[in-house]
Amino acid sequence: MAISTKPLSGMRDFLPADVARRNYVVGIVRQVYERYGFVPLETPALESLDVLLGKYGEDEKLIYRVLHRGEELQRVLASPPQRGLDADALSDQALRYDLTVPLARVLAQYGDLPRYFKRYQIQPVWRADRPGKGRFREFYQCDVDVTGTEAAIAEAEVCAAGCEVLDRLGFRDYTFALNHRELLRSLIRSAGIETGREGSALQAIDKLDKIGKDAVLDELGGRGVDRSAGERLLALIDRPEDESNDTRLSDLREGLVDDAGRAAVDRLEEILGLLRATPVGSHVRIMPKLARGLGYYTGAIFEIAAAGLGSSIGGGGRYDELVGIFGKRRVPAVGLSLGLERILVIMTEQGMFPDLGVGPQVMLCWLDVDRSDVLRVAHRLRAQGLRVEVFPEPAKLGKQMQYADTPGVAAPWCAIVGASELANGEVALKHMASGDQAAVAIDAVAEAIARR
Amino acid sequence: MAISTKPLSGMRDFLPADVARRNYVVGIVRQVYERYGFVPLETPALESLDVLLGKYGEDEKLIYRVLHRGEELQRVLASPPQRGLDADALSDQALRYDLTVPLARVLAQYGDLPRYFKRYQIQPVWRADRPGKGRFREFYQCDVDVTGTEAAIAEAEVCAAGCEVLDRLGFRDYTFALNHRELLRSLIRSAGIETGREGSALQAIDKLDKIGKDAVLDELGGRGVDRSAGERLLALIDRPEDESNDTRLSDLREGLVDDAGRAAVDRLEEILGLLRATPVGSHVRIMPKLARGLGYYTGAIFEIAAAGLGSSIGGGGRYDELVGIFGKRRVPAVGLSLGLERILVIMTEQGMFPDLGVGPQVMLCWLDVDRSDVLRVAHRLRAQGLRVEVFPEPAKLGKQMQYADTPGVAAPWCAIVGASELANGEVALKHMASGDQAAVAIDAVAEAIARR
Repeated sequence: MAISTKPLSGMRDFLPADVARRNYVVGIVRQVYERYGFVPLETPALESLDVLLGKYGEDEKLIYRVLHRGEELQRVLASPPQRGLDADALSDQALRYDLTVPLARVLAQYGDLPRYFKRYQIQPVWRADRPGKGRFREFYQCDVDVTGTEAAIAEAEVCAAGCEVLDRLGFRDYTFALNHRELLRSLIRSAGIETGREGSALQAIDKLDKIGKDAVLDELGGRGVDRSAGERLLALIDRPEDESNDTRLSDLREGLVDDAGRAAVDRLEEILGLLRATPVGSHVRIMPKLARGLGYYTGAIFEIAAAGLGSSIGGGGRYDELVGIFGKRRVPAVGLSLGLERILVIMTEQGMFPDLGVGPQVMLCWLDVDRSDVLRVAHRLRAQGLRVEVFPEPAKLGKQMQYADTPGVAAPWCAIVGASELANGEVALKHMASGDQAAVAIDAVAEAIARR
Repeated sequence: MAISTKPLSGMRDFLPADVARRNYVVGIVRQVYERYGFVPLETPALESLDVLLGKYGEDEKLIYRVLHRGEELQRVLASPPQRGLDADALSDQALRYDLTVPLARVLAQYGDLPRYFKRYQIQPVWRADRPGKGRFREFYQCDVDVTGTEAAIAEAEVCAAGCEVLDRLGFRDYTFALNHRELLRSLIRSAGIETGREGSALQAIDKLDKIGKDAVLDELGGRGVDRSAGERLLALIDRPEDESNDTRLSDLREGLVDDAGRAAVDRLEEILGLLRATPVGSHVRIMPKLARGLGYYTGAIFEIAAAGLGSSIGGGGRYDELVGIFGKRRVPAVGLSLGLERILVIMTEQGMFPDLGVGPQVMLCWLDVDRSDVLRVAHRLRAQGLRVEVFPEPAKLGKQMQYADTPGVAAPWCAIVGASELANGEVALKHMASGDQAAVAIDAVAEAIARR
């Protein structure tokens, strides 16, 4: 049987242009995050299952586990546990599922990290999810978090850094939706929904933009919320499009029945004031219907959506009870995750990349000269910062230039070295698109190319 | 039971300074390789076991396999194959073990790759080896290969690019050992060792530098090679230190009994001539005892060793029968792999890194001003290219500056913003090491820091 050479389902090979695009985006992310005082962290692809289990709810089944090896596997197979063989008996390590749990482990492990540990982390994670459009089993996460403080400056800095990344990448029309988990909970209570159904209601609301009001009311009904309470809730959270942030907040405050909700509004006003002084600026929209699926948020939550695209390109929030789990003390934290894969898709579709310089700029073609001399010329061209490929085999010049022009190589210039050029310290520099050709001194080639 | 927060055995967390060092090296590798016309490739961490098995000999047992999930696991556990449960029944995917087999898969999968596909690839691989000093279970490989040509220019370019990386990183005294697999085979025959024992002899010779002459002779004996043939072989391959490359080659040629060996010497002379025109230059040493462990080499082989360090920091060779395995045609190839982990260890030990700018340059401290104004000042400082952390919580100035000085933060400067500074459009810029402090216009801070 022939072996399939496709990458595994849900995984991708990154060919040169793909890698160049990702490196370009990652380079800007790094630079911006470092200017905001964040430092890079990387953790192993494999973690102990002890560390991972119990953190992801029912998604835990999507974790890729590593099979025991050698004697350990023999032992388990020879004498299975009483309950019988299962995944827990056959593995105790697994692939990284997100970047937050590893951060929590690192915070507990290293005693000498700064009190306000501001880290960014850009690494792949693996989830055995059903593959789909834009949903992969191996994908990069791009997280930035501030730990160790409850101060609103942490929210502001995390959000500002994320938006400055988008600005630098060329995103213009995006919305930065801001909400607070406690405000939303209070609104649910204020609509007359009983405390026991808060979590259920959150999950229904989370789908509002996807499935619409009627379907959410149906779903709320299915979860035991009566229709009039559901309608009151939707009236509170589904606001007129053109309402200003300040009106929205003061209006929301009016409808609240408890102090927890009013404290959340105070906090949102505080954050809003700070965000206005940052690159988030006019992008920010108070969005009381924003729920964010994940269970662990405890404070402000946010989500970034590019204009005309349904799904978000980033999101995050405050989660004060998670990253301390492996240690002895509570560690407040706020973070933002950029959707690197989605950013790449949008930027590719909308032609937002500059020329990324993949592949050679110059194909060095040669005839009737010593190959050592060809390599010496190549070295001098490279010393000028040029990306230079040397045609490797003896061939007619026409064939060499034809190769320079093939897709996947696509060198915009050929530099031709023959005996007379070499004697003059020159190359014949040919611009492939126009066919223009001129003799250029070897050490002036970069300059000649830059002039074009 | 408390959960261990250490990384798994043989794996490492990369804290900020570690990531910065690796990114610095990788950045130079990328830049040099791209100037040589190589393009980047990345492949998934997981590969089908079909692709990986049968490629690594007995090391195959070191492959990390991924356990089946969900229904597939249930099915196998419920009705195991007749031979019983084993690793093959429980998994069909595994972690990447090297970067060469994925390259072979990519070459077979994508029909529109350039004929001379010159790719570099820098990604982690996983091997369940016994962890030891400098030997990890997750480590980066850094490979560069030219496929599709048997021309010696390919050897020259791969070797030149590798040495130029080392030069740029600051390595000075390193040796570039060059040999040819067919020359070594011919020398073995010329010493009178029978053809059937060539492979065995290669493996023994591979250990010469580690275990010494006597032990190699013993090992050769154990492998059925008689002592006088073993001594003849060692006399041929273990050359005087001060012998020149040219003398060595002509001397070797004398001792050869067959044309295959003489053809290999011709080829080495050709490559040697080309390398002299590149950054490999005076580093190159013809080294007939160099064997390189891996079985798949078919031509020139090479290994780079840093002065005073036993083990190599890179190596490679020509392997014309491997990367075509998944396709319909033979694809000649030559490649070099740099030992990124070892390079990092040496550079760290020998202080070869420049200031890598990890962490904030400026800690922005503030008192009695609006936090929005603090964030505006931070933005103006960042716009100057500075890495700026904002102290997040209200605190006494002394406490803020003390934090700037803690290990892990170590901001060399504090910029203090109070009401009067803000009114003047200035910060009080304090140099932490000297204690010098001066009022500086907000937009001139980067300049003031650069002047110091």
